[in-house]
Amino acid sequence: MIAELIRSCCGLELLAVKYKGKNVSIENLHQGFTHIFESTFESTEGVAEYVAHPAHVEYANLFLANLEKVLVIDYKPTTVRV
Amino acid sequence: MIAELIRSCCGLELLAVKYKGKNVSIENLHQGFTHIFESTFESTEGVAEYVAHPAHVEYANLFLANLEKVLVIDYKPTTVRV
Repeated sequence: MIAELIRSCCGLELLAVKYKGKNVSIENLHQGFTHIFESTFESTEGVAEYVAHPAHVEYANLFLANLEKVLVIDYKPTTVRV
Repeated sequence: MIAELIRSCCGLELLAVKYKGKNVSIENLHQGFTHIFESTFESTEGVAEYVAHPAHVEYANLFLANLEKVLVIDYKPTTVRV
């Protein structure tokens, strides 16, 4: 079910997801999280539009209902090292 | 103390941290996490070298001791959308 939802997520052109992947960390600090989705937006307004978009809301409700836990973090990246 | 540790982290040339930032998500799904560090490596071997490096171990021990909680996830990014 999760695998299917992940596939359907990435078929939705609206969604801004740029990269996805499964956790492979050797540090054992992943706290049970297994999948990662990374998106990039031009602005915080862009994030807000995305979050509020009906297609996102519909997908998020379905996706979240099938997840054991979820963590969402947004940040404005400060470049430390290129 | 955390702010100081974050500054010192980014002064360490060894560290592979590329971007840093504070959580600004409006979704309230950040589970109390406040800061993000993002690094990119050429290979999983590169991650393992970094994790095992004495300077990383020393810094990580100091840093982790001052954090309420931490989450580390590594993933090989599959491009979903460019």
